[in-house]
Amino acid sequence: MPALTALLHGPDSPGIVARTASWIFQNGGNILHADQHRDAGADVFIQRIEWQPAAGHDADAEGAQFGEYAASLGLHAKIARGDERPRVAVLVSKQGHAFHDLMLRWTAGELPCDIAFVASNHTVWEAAAREHYRVPFFHIPVAPERKHEAEARLAALAREHDVNLLVMARYMQVLSGDFLLRLCPAPVINIHHSFLPAFAGAKPYHQAHERGVKLIGATAHYATPVLDDGPIIHQAVSPITHRHSVEDLVRLGQDLEKQVLAQAVRWHLQNRVLAYGKKTVVFE
Amino acid sequence: MPALTALLHGPDSPGIVARTASWIFQNGGNILHADQHRDAGADVFIQRIEWQPAAGHDADAEGAQFGEYAASLGLHAKIARGDERPRVAVLVSKQGHAFHDLMLRWTAGELPCDIAFVASNHTVWEAAAREHYRVPFFHIPVAPERKHEAEARLAALAREHDVNLLVMARYMQVLSGDFLLRLCPAPVINIHHSFLPAFAGAKPYHQAHERGVKLIGATAHYATPVLDDGPIIHQAVSPITHRHSVEDLVRLGQDLEKQVLAQAVRWHLQNRVLAYGKKTVVFE
Amino acid sequence: MPALTALLHGPDSPGIVARTASWIFQNGGNILHADQHRDAGADVFIQRIEWQPAAGHDADAEGAQFGEYAASLGLHAKIARGDERPRVAVLVSKQGHAFHDLMLRWTAGELPCDIAFVASNHTVWEAAAREHYRVPFFHIPVAPERKHEAEARLAALAREHDVNLLVMARYMQVLSGDFLLRLCPAPVINIHHSFLPAFAGAKPYHQAHERGVKLIGATAHYATPVLDDGPIIHQAVSPITHRHSVEDLVRLGQDLEKQVLAQAVRWHLQNRVLAYGKKTVVFE
Amino acid sequence: MPALTALLHGPDSPGIVARTASWIFQNGGNILHADQHRDAGADVFIQRIEWQPAAGHDADAEGAQFGEYAASLGLHAKIARGDERPRVAVLVSKQGHAFHDLMLRWTAGELPCDIAFVASNHTVWEAAAREHYRVPFFHIPVAPERKHEAEARLAALAREHDVNLLVMARYMQVLSGDFLLRLCPAPVINIHHSFLPAFAGAKPYHQAHERGVKLIGATAHYATPVLDDGPIIHQAVSPITHRHSVEDLVRLGQDLEKQVLAQAVRWHLQNRVLAYGKKTVVFE
Repeated sequence: MPALTALLHGPDSPGIVARTASWIFQNGGNILHADQHRDAGADVFIQRIEWQPAAGHDADAEGAQFGEYAASLGLHAKIARGDERPRVAVLVSKQGHAFHDLMLRWTAGELPCDIAFVASNHTVWEAAAREHYRVPFFHIPVAPERKHEAEARLAALAREHDVNLLVMARYMQVLSGDFLLRLCPAPVINIHHSFLPAFAGAKPYHQAHERGVKLIGATAHYATPVLDDGPIIHQAVSPITHRHSVEDLVRLGQDLEKQVLAQAVRWHLQNRVLAYGKKTVVFE
Repeated sequence: MPALTALLHGPDSPGIVARTASWIFQNGGNILHADQHRDAGADVFIQRIEWQPAAGHDADAEGAQFGEYAASLGLHAKIARGDERPRVAVLVSKQGHAFHDLMLRWTAGELPCDIAFVASNHTVWEAAAREHYRVPFFHIPVAPERKHEAEARLAALAREHDVNLLVMARYMQVLSGDFLLRLCPAPVINIHHSFLPAFAGAKPYHQAHERGVKLIGATAHYATPVLDDGPIIHQAVSPITHRHSVEDLVRLGQDLEKQVLAQAVRWHLQNRVLAYGKKTVVFE
Repeated sequence: MPALTALLHGPDSPGIVARTASWIFQNGGNILHADQHRDAGADVFIQRIEWQPAAGHDADAEGAQFGEYAASLGLHAKIARGDERPRVAVLVSKQGHAFHDLMLRWTAGELPCDIAFVASNHTVWEAAAREHYRVPFFHIPVAPERKHEAEARLAALAREHDVNLLVMARYMQVLSGDFLLRLCPAPVINIHHSFLPAFAGAKPYHQAHERGVKLIGATAHYATPVLDDGPIIHQAVSPITHRHSVEDLVRLGQDLEKQVLAQAVRWHLQNRVLAYGKKTVVFE
Repeated sequence: MPALTALLHGPDSPGIVARTASWIFQNGGNILHADQHRDAGADVFIQRIEWQPAAGHDADAEGAQFGEYAASLGLHAKIARGDERPRVAVLVSKQGHAFHDLMLRWTAGELPCDIAFVASNHTVWEAAAREHYRVPFFHIPVAPERKHEAEARLAALAREHDVNLLVMARYMQVLSGDFLLRLCPAPVINIHHSFLPAFAGAKPYHQAHERGVKLIGATAHYATPVLDDGPIIHQAVSPITHRHSVEDLVRLGQDLEKQVLAQAVRWHLQNRVLAYGKKTVVFE
């Protein structure tokens, strides 16, 4: 019998923590973890609660009932079974470090998901995807003037493969607002190779080198129509000195990118991340 | 009306999270924060719960009633009012960095406590304590062969001044098991200038330099009769290189010591730290 | 006999490392440390070299002669005696954390300088400066419409007291380009409470909280007429979560500000920092 | 024409920095980088110097001549050509994270070496080595009572393949003193999954969890006959909390292991690491 996890959010009200806990208890469940957050400024209550339903209960039914109860409290609930494996599409271009890192972690069991497919605007990693990691690969060339077609094809593939999450593992194409808001059936996580909001846009390591900063960073965020502006899930930095060339920044930054992206994807897959407004809450 | 905070621990049992939440709710309280931990190996349940009692309720009475309810669930409860200010004694020897750091943070309002007194086996910081920070100062010389007397005097002072916590801010005396287990009326937090368990005992920076480690650390822990072996509250490290002399390690380490000790004391004062066995749970 | 330190910069040329080393050797000196950097893009050679002159040599004379030799190689040289103590003016407003931190480090011998005076647009820290740290204090009120007068007075004080460095220890006044480029006789180090270039300008912790970043930072830089745009000397960051309020960011950030500023000042005092263009080289 | 790098060490003497610089200059070379360290306690002078020989010079001849000159100053010199590619053998057992990380970095051009072969006491990674990374693989089973045979075979392979460095990428066998001191033709770098000297020996993550430390670490060091006691090249740590199970520590620790090992190997390959006594100097 799998555990259930609910990620709740909505307007705050007194007694809300006790009410959700009581509902689970009265239904014979045992709370394994519970964590909550109040954003006083935005008047938002957010909770993540994980529980073991009573023996013999149907997990899907209990999840649905809990969702209805949450709705009666004015809360939106996203509920996941512990044995569910979200379906993930990985997008990659020519640079393979983040792609290989995700795939190796997935192979090692670190990422609780299925890889629905890998898609790329290049064919560099086709053999690795198919033969080494044994997942489907789709080549979706992106001609600048026909970008919309490429996006439509990607969206169609995501729908066909029941994709729950797209991960841009250094996918070097800006996804359009139309894709992100309308076409794409699932959220998109991107890794940007700077400490946002510093150095948004192109060539952040060059920008960092020129500005003479003493730290470089990486930022995993949900992609939104405004470039590099979506809710931030995770960030990390490394110290650098005047000795580091742009090439060194690229190399050191790739280590950050790999870790930050993998951590963000892992948290998302564990139903730990809730985005609201321009922010996220991450229940680590 | 102050909020109440309970730090609970005891054997785990089903429904325990829902029960404490419900008790508060049924008494008209509103839960502000709740966090819990299960140590499966040790079969220990630990919870920190902070709530706003109903208007008109007596905080002390409600705290006592909650404590009785927790006891009926087999849980030990430590309950604190949000407006309580624990009374802290600061112990210092000749090196003043951790002492000044604590006192300045206290002056700036970062540490929610009263400083009951400063005690030292030297008089170096007497004027600073009295005139600059305006707190009582006691000089307790420690003659090696009459250490017990000094400890008895310190314990007596702690009792007279209703001390709730003693902080060894680089107090260069090993407190005896008799003092720690029997004489002293309150827990003692110590800062050790290494990443424990590496380099316990004397001259850890010299040990680190000799061993050629590439990081130095500091560890805040509760003092127990076995030297540098008590439950760890907080630790941090800094990178070093072969260029750093022992003197550099001392200087860099002092920054770690200050931050690690202040953070540990702050968490303790906020009722966020529970020690059990050789470990702590820190509800950040 | 004090050691000498030269900080050299100028156009790169073959043999330059060997030439400076040979000059010192042929004059009977012994090189203690030497470090250099080439910025290929800017065609700049930068070197820091520290040596012990021969017994009986006059340090000032040898320094001057070395400077002339460096000039003959096309290099600008800043030369310092190891026994020199630069004279520092500390500027502070109402928030005292960075001020106290600097003064305590200075008292403890961590900062090889003399404190010429403390100046403030408020009187909050007058007694602490005079009585606790025993340094001169000047109150320079800054009326918005008469800022120029205040800057002129500060510049005059800096000249009268032979000041070699001004440190803005959270001095909450923007210094004008006229002051920085014309009036002030010495470089100015500022601490900005964000990871620049993110969140320049006012209220960076509020900006960081609003944007939902997962790290906060602090940046020490030389002040230039463009606000928060000067060459960066040092930066550091701390991880934060959604749980941290703006007040928490301020508190955590103050720890960063103290350390980053003190480190930057220390490096500057040790003749380790060379600013060129928008960047610095720091020979740690 | 390749650059040359010399790593020198020996007793300190006056003028030594100028002498090596002058030799290079007088031979028409141009110094690209030079860095040095004095260990006053051990009376050891250590220098790394990188230079571009004059056009038309034979790099091997110039390196040999410089070595002779260094010897005349009492210094031992290890000299490498910039176009040399050391030959590396990678040892792995069942856990593949460090192995894949090294191989992917090598594939991406981050590690300036040739992979002579991969050897393992298991066959788990045979196909990956041969087919994915296209390097030779040798299965060397290690029967407890016949360990010496396995070591002899490994040493023979290392000799046959002209191996310059062996890397234990979580190779779960303790190499004997006989192997390390006598049989093996090259230095051995090991990654230990703790912050040494804390938690040497078996199951360090279990030890760390039991002790309740708040940081876990990884240490790359040269293997010596005393287990986990060799000169440390690099270390890093990650913060943990009571929420992390032993399994979490293993997962988080693997990220540390990968980075720390790769960085140590990279520095070694760039002739930046000199081990003496129980320490290393790393010229970053």
